[in-house]
Amino acid sequence: MVCKRGRTMKQIPRFEDVIAAAERIEPHVHRTPVLTSRTLNRMTGAELFLKCENLQRVGAFKARGACNAVFALTEEEAARGVATHSSGNHGAALSYAAGLRGVPAIVVMPENAPPVKRAAVAGYGAHIVTSGSRPLDRERKLEEVIEETGATFVHPSNDPWVIAGQGTAALELLAQAPELDVVMVPVGGGGLLAGTALAVAGRSPGARTVAAEPEMADDAYRSFRDGRIYSSENPQTIADGLRTFLGDVNFPIIREHVSEIVTVSERAIVEAMRLVWERLKIVIEPSSAVPVAALFEGRFDPRGKRIGIVLSGGNVDLERLPWM
Amino acid sequence: MVCKRGRTMKQIPRFEDVIAAAERIEPHVHRTPVLTSRTLNRMTGAELFLKCENLQRVGAFKARGACNAVFALTEEEAARGVATHSSGNHGAALSYAAGLRGVPAIVVMPENAPPVKRAAVAGYGAHIVTSGSRPLDRERKLEEVIEETGATFVHPSNDPWVIAGQGTAALELLAQAPELDVVMVPVGGGGLLAGTALAVAGRSPGARTVAAEPEMADDAYRSFRDGRIYSSENPQTIADGLRTFLGDVNFPIIREHVSEIVTVSERAIVEAMRLVWERLKIVIEPSSAVPVAALFEGRFDPRGKRIGIVLSGGNVDLERLPWM
Repeated sequence: MVCKRGRTMKQIPRFEDVIAAAERIEPHVHRTPVLTSRTLNRMTGAELFLKCENLQRVGAFKARGACNAVFALTEEEAARGVATHSSGNHGAALSYAAGLRGVPAIVVMPENAPPVKRAAVAGYGAHIVTSGSRPLDRERKLEEVIEETGATFVHPSNDPWVIAGQGTAALELLAQAPELDVVMVPVGGGGLLAGTALAVAGRSPGARTVAAEPEMADDAYRSFRDGRIYSSENPQTIADGLRTFLGDVNFPIIREHVSEIVTVSERAIVEAMRLVWERLKIVIEPSSAVPVAALFEGRFDPRGKRIGIVLSGGNVDLERLPWM
Repeated sequence: MVCKRGRTMKQIPRFEDVIAAAERIEPHVHRTPVLTSRTLNRMTGAELFLKCENLQRVGAFKARGACNAVFALTEEEAARGVATHSSGNHGAALSYAAGLRGVPAIVVMPENAPPVKRAAVAGYGAHIVTSGSRPLDRERKLEEVIEETGATFVHPSNDPWVIAGQGTAALELLAQAPELDVVMVPVGGGGLLAGTALAVAGRSPGARTVAAEPEMADDAYRSFRDGRIYSSENPQTIADGLRTFLGDVNFPIIREHVSEIVTVSERAIVEAMRLVWERLKIVIEPSSAVPVAALFEGRFDPRGKRIGIVLSGGNVDLERLPWM
């Protein structure tokens, strides 16, 4: 293993860390299936392989990074517990992972987090602390919590163990669907994107990593273009998992290994989400639909390519579907 | 193979026919994944293995029986095409299978069939003929069609090749989740139930086959109890795939190999459907939820058992969800 534990370090994970993560988390996560759809292939002119991380433990790929972070803790660190801020899926995942290891977890959640996500976090046993909805509000509240408890902060996307863990989804996908030309993922905080880029560069150097992002939260697109991290001030995209911004651990990886970041409209996200529900018979959340939307909105040409897509999660409020 | 083709025969398929079907349809259908859920296990006290036939081609197990029936036709029969009546999934499946072999297909559909199912049938290339909604209306219209075209009638549930084909789902499930105590399926026309019972009796004689049926369409329950086939007159259950009744080909198999048929309320069906969407992140239609509902409504005691369940299909109208 390249990365060593230690709360204050800002280490950049490498491909070897993704390999180590795959071994570490293997007993705790699903090897999720990869689905294909003749209809989607016909519609896009591509051959698509959809990695169903919506069927992952806690309903999202976030279980991978959280398990890697929690099970990499020293005994001493573990005893003081873990803490994070999260709009939802990472909070549930950290809660799940901490429960597996028998470690206390505290999750700071914004007051506007979807009720279904709050319930999931609480259901896995973490203690929830509510903050304001701005990134800064969450961070201040979290600092207080860490000050009090000595818990290890597991950032949702800018933590080397989280990034390495998220990369294991693409590692599996590349084994399940060989000879891909492109691997596509949504980008919010950048943890999944950086992990995926490491996995693809290490395992299938001929393939490209492409990210898709909502137009209404296009900070990663702009950051990638200009070579500096922009933040996004409370963006209103329906893809609530992608409202965060890149960090100093994942950005260098993204700059080095990602080919392209494309943006999509809100309308295309909803249409793609619905199409996947209807044709693939799986429940995906709006964030998962973002790369699928990119295939249809023409800002990325899928024709003739073998494209793997990580469907990131399936946690939605079934009372409020965006097409109704 | 035990069963020989021939339109007027009423042969009873055997386990060997299920084995032959598995080989025949292998290139044309998905080996669907089996999902597990800690939450559902905790709620039921059982260990559940959910065979996702909602992720099957055409969104339902019906692709299996239809492919087996179509690919077992002689060249001469194939040239005249196939015909059926169907409330939806079997029609789509036969249309799909006929398209694969390049054979014409005519599907008689009742006027009250869900639009999403009509669109699916048409989308796979079959010619749709509309009839009244009563079983008798459909049958009369179908007779006319067969008279005119000489097509082979592929009954949705009372055809030996269809029954053998449907049994392949349980055959796979028994390989994917070994040492099951019980295999549960919904029962409507009885094709899936009879095929499953053959597969279970032949492959895992120690396991039991249990069927679940809506209270509001409990003809199979009564038929099984009394040893004679009852029909059901236009039943109003939300499980629209289960409004049909047993036939003389599948009933002898069901009597010999099925342990129990239990019934469930409409409310339990909707709750189970929603629970599966929410926790397993998959889209299932109401018929698929019927066996899951049986675990919760207490007419079948799941505790301490390893239970395989065939989730039969995922074709629903996303505009009209029953809990909204």
